[in-house]
Amino acid sequence: MEFKIGFIGLGIMGKPMAKNLIKAGFKLTVWNRTASKMKELIDMGAEGANSPKEVAEKSNVIITMLTDSPDVEEVILGPSGVIEGVKKGSIVIDMSTISPKVAKKIAKKLAEVGVEMLDAPVTGGEIGAINATLSIMVGGNYETFEKCLPIFQALGKRVTYMGPNGNGQITKLCNQIMCVMNLQGVCEGLILAAKAGLDLNKLLDVLTGGAANSWMLSNLGPKMIKGDMEPGFKIATQQKDLRLVLETAAELNVPLPGTAIVQQMFRVAEAEGLSEKGTQALIKAMEKLAGYKLTKE
Amino acid sequence: MEFKIGFIGLGIMGKPMAKNLIKAGFKLTVWNRTASKMKELIDMGAEGANSPKEVAEKSNVIITMLTDSPDVEEVILGPSGVIEGVKKGSIVIDMSTISPKVAKKIAKKLAEVGVEMLDAPVTGGEIGAINATLSIMVGGNYETFEKCLPIFQALGKRVTYMGPNGNGQITKLCNQIMCVMNLQGVCEGLILAAKAGLDLNKLLDVLTGGAANSWMLSNLGPKMIKGDMEPGFKIATQQKDLRLVLETAAELNVPLPGTAIVQQMFRVAEAEGLSEKGTQALIKAMEKLAGYKLTKE
Amino acid sequence: MEFKIGFIGLGIMGKPMAKNLIKAGFKLTVWNRTASKMKELIDMGAEGANSPKEVAEKSNVIITMLTDSPDVEEVILGPSGVIEGVKKGSIVIDMSTISPKVAKKIAKKLAEVGVEMLDAPVTGGEIGAINATLSIMVGGNYETFEKCLPIFQALGKRVTYMGPNGNGQITKLCNQIMCVMNLQGVCEGLILAAKAGLDLNKLLDVLTGGAANSWMLSNLGPKMIKGDMEPGFKIATQQKDLRLVLETAAELNVPLPGTAIVQQMFRVAEAEGLSEKGTQALIKAMEKLAGYKLTKE
Amino acid sequence: MEFKIGFIGLGIMGKPMAKNLIKAGFKLTVWNRTASKMKELIDMGAEGANSPKEVAEKSNVIITMLTDSPDVEEVILGPSGVIEGVKKGSIVIDMSTISPKVAKKIAKKLAEVGVEMLDAPVTGGEIGAINATLSIMVGGNYETFEKCLPIFQALGKRVTYMGPNGNGQITKLCNQIMCVMNLQGVCEGLILAAKAGLDLNKLLDVLTGGAANSWMLSNLGPKMIKGDMEPGFKIATQQKDLRLVLETAAELNVPLPGTAIVQQMFRVAEAEGLSEKGTQALIKAMEKLAGYKLTKE
Repeated sequence: MEFKIGFIGLGIMGKPMAKNLIKAGFKLTVWNRTASKMKELIDMGAEGANSPKEVAEKSNVIITMLTDSPDVEEVILGPSGVIEGVKKGSIVIDMSTISPKVAKKIAKKLAEVGVEMLDAPVTGGEIGAINATLSIMVGGNYETFEKCLPIFQALGKRVTYMGPNGNGQITKLCNQIMCVMNLQGVCEGLILAAKAGLDLNKLLDVLTGGAANSWMLSNLGPKMIKGDMEPGFKIATQQKDLRLVLETAAELNVPLPGTAIVQQMFRVAEAEGLSEKGTQALIKAMEKLAGYKLTKE
Repeated sequence: MEFKIGFIGLGIMGKPMAKNLIKAGFKLTVWNRTASKMKELIDMGAEGANSPKEVAEKSNVIITMLTDSPDVEEVILGPSGVIEGVKKGSIVIDMSTISPKVAKKIAKKLAEVGVEMLDAPVTGGEIGAINATLSIMVGGNYETFEKCLPIFQALGKRVTYMGPNGNGQITKLCNQIMCVMNLQGVCEGLILAAKAGLDLNKLLDVLTGGAANSWMLSNLGPKMIKGDMEPGFKIATQQKDLRLVLETAAELNVPLPGTAIVQQMFRVAEAEGLSEKGTQALIKAMEKLAGYKLTKE
Repeated sequence: MEFKIGFIGLGIMGKPMAKNLIKAGFKLTVWNRTASKMKELIDMGAEGANSPKEVAEKSNVIITMLTDSPDVEEVILGPSGVIEGVKKGSIVIDMSTISPKVAKKIAKKLAEVGVEMLDAPVTGGEIGAINATLSIMVGGNYETFEKCLPIFQALGKRVTYMGPNGNGQITKLCNQIMCVMNLQGVCEGLILAAKAGLDLNKLLDVLTGGAANSWMLSNLGPKMIKGDMEPGFKIATQQKDLRLVLETAAELNVPLPGTAIVQQMFRVAEAEGLSEKGTQALIKAMEKLAGYKLTKE
Repeated sequence: MEFKIGFIGLGIMGKPMAKNLIKAGFKLTVWNRTASKMKELIDMGAEGANSPKEVAEKSNVIITMLTDSPDVEEVILGPSGVIEGVKKGSIVIDMSTISPKVAKKIAKKLAEVGVEMLDAPVTGGEIGAINATLSIMVGGNYETFEKCLPIFQALGKRVTYMGPNGNGQITKLCNQIMCVMNLQGVCEGLILAAKAGLDLNKLLDVLTGGAANSWMLSNLGPKMIKGDMEPGFKIATQQKDLRLVLETAAELNVPLPGTAIVQQMFRVAEAEGLSEKGTQALIKAMEKLAGYKLTKE
């Protein structure tokens, strides 16, 4: 199969991913709601389209990288959407993080017109998108997955097949649960240490070496101590993902008391106006609760 | 200073630690409430004593490795306790995990009779105690800490000075906060994945490679999936530590909503009779809440 | 204004409410998705319609009493919906419990065709619907509210104007927050008392007389003790309302840690298959957590 | 039995209770750590003692009304304590709120010297103490309880026998669980309503009439809205009681997720310096979390 790739959604994640596909030698047709964001890709050789429908007409693999379930639903199934232009035998890969339920619904609608879908959300953030080091968790038909491997390998370093449609998204949601719980743990540990007067850098040194360690502690702990709240991953997006987590857990009747509480703690950060800060700004919520600041300003 | 070490408390942790000191060439006097546990050490060349007081009389560094604050208080300050036999200029090292407040109180009482104390709790579990790879977090006088370094180095691989008395214990408590939050995150992620029908081994493969990773996920995740509940660290002991965490946080007015919830989830496991199982048995609590078992038996 | 009332939604709540309107002398046109449920009302003198549109054509006040936001949206704004048949100057009263945001959206759409809407959710349950003793919390235009008072007074005993559109729904959500928190309090108190061996009937006697008392304790406490789980208000509906609460709180950036936890405890009950039981079955979740049953069966 | 009553502990609660006993015609011997507080009682005809021991020597019923378990333990069992002066056949009534475990321990020690104890904590606050309208929950021997009824009836209006020693205290703790959960419910409902722009007085009017009502809503809701934070019952004392609740629940392996979270929310209030305010100041914690004030100052 010679790939003619359509790429829809050129945001913080989508743009560097599309660039990596061009660099890897793939032919690309792109579309973005805000058309001006297409320019950079067109300058690199991509073709611009006027609608998702047109992208689909000109491609045999259509990738979507959007924010939330309704965006993906509209772009694929809505008016002038992918489904209006897509050819039988084409493949749609949704790499957004959306509801597993919506992923399955879209897959079913596309199957009715002879189109396979993969749900393939990613982790690794903007850095991973730029460096093509994303982790990609894929749900859908296994043969379709295998067929698309060259594309995934141009975007990430760890690509895992997780089973039928929806399983890619479920995997991502489990990932998010652990991320936020680890993060809350870092915040609660740091605020107690700070108010007790410990040297927080020494604390990080000790704790990263043992059973308390986590990616969050190693990577976001130092940012919290420095007061660096620049977003690698935004609180607003995290909250969107937590909403998906809790909705999905509700459908499956899985109680998640820890995650439910952390969602409320992120809400404290949002009430402080920190939605556009990185998730490490969760420490600001804990500072507020404790009436104590980690760093003296 | 030529060390004559007294070692009090020959439990799961204390016994291998005492052995490592003997292997490192130190002269040891030992005491344990259940006297029979002293035999193995005496066979290795240690001298047995009849009371903590006698241990103190025969040593210039006295190490305690016990379960909880009242144990340490009694052995050091109680009748026939260390304080009755200890010589001015000696050093007491408490390596138990106890209340920072009690640690400070004991240090103060010992200081009144011319004895320095270090609070030096450890992480690394039984394995770390056996292999002399414990992490040791030390609070107390810095010169005293430096003097005792040869002893610490016979017991662990990462020894960190954390500041004045109590700071060793506070560090340990922060460690425990992160451990249990990470653990609860692992449990919540796994139970959602399981009930959604994911392959849990594949899930672990994916998630250990990214931002969701933690020591807990890598080390206890596989045990949960296998149903191996053998204790590395017991739920009963974890609950004791969480009690210390929340007591200390109460004294410092630090709200810890996540930790407070996880303590209640461990309580669910205890209500199931799992107090003597490893902390990974927290997954049993989440299984109960979700009405779903991770592993088919 | 002579009222020609249309009534849409003849479920557990809607049917007795429609009957009370007939008894009060109002002329009624009714519609229900399951047409068979209309028979009883038609026998009492109501006219049956074939669609919400037809109801709207034949009425000047259209009442909807449905389950959730999408139902109301479809019946009012969807194909063959109220909006297609409604005459300028008519009034739509939605008495369902739905999202304040959706209530405002519907009100706006109706205003565009010259129709006023009131959001007027109720409390008091099936009993209140039957006995016309509902409490009704109304949002919308004040003059419209006043005009509709005779209708409300045929349905309930306490009718309160809460401000512009959406405020009726917000009031209902605040009501639900307090209800579930009080209920969780009853459950936590009872399970502790039971496991400690107290006589629960005596406990109720004492506690209903003091600062611990609540409507929930007085009304649902005895049912819990008797093991009577028959629904006055179903857990499934309560969970729908809690979802609306937390969505609305998310839009307003209001952290609700208590409510978030209680939602997860109801989830435990749902995982046990208790969705169709009354909210007092929350005690079953707490029994599960504590590994102890309130009543010996 | 002709009562010669000893009364120990003349604080906010104890002093008006002792006065009521004098007014009811009982002969009183009193003691208080801060001796100056005895003056008012002595002026009313009570005899002052120099120690709990002396109180016990001069009385056949000794009442204690103190703050926490250690206080009661010391006054009854400590040096110059009640136990040193008490005569065989006397009765000790502890009306403080303390640990059920400690209550049982004290009862056992007193039984060894032929003295019966009743644990008889109260609710109703300072007002109830002044007006002799307290609710009294009594644990201990039933005959002893009956014997003391005339004393209880001089202090409160609802006196209930709850079973053997400790059961009075357990009853009180269950009372506190429901109180704080109801209170948190009031706070979460009010803060959502406030941020949504509702008229809070109207809201109270509506909600007190239905299923959301509670003693807390009716009594503390208006104070929250007015910003009146004067203590009827102090946050510091509430936190002491919650500590007892969670300790007791730990001993009985009863998970209390809601109560555990509310304890942390009170901690937020304490971190704000509100320990000496009334429990209604919990609203200040929720205001902080939501970044929004209920009342404009």
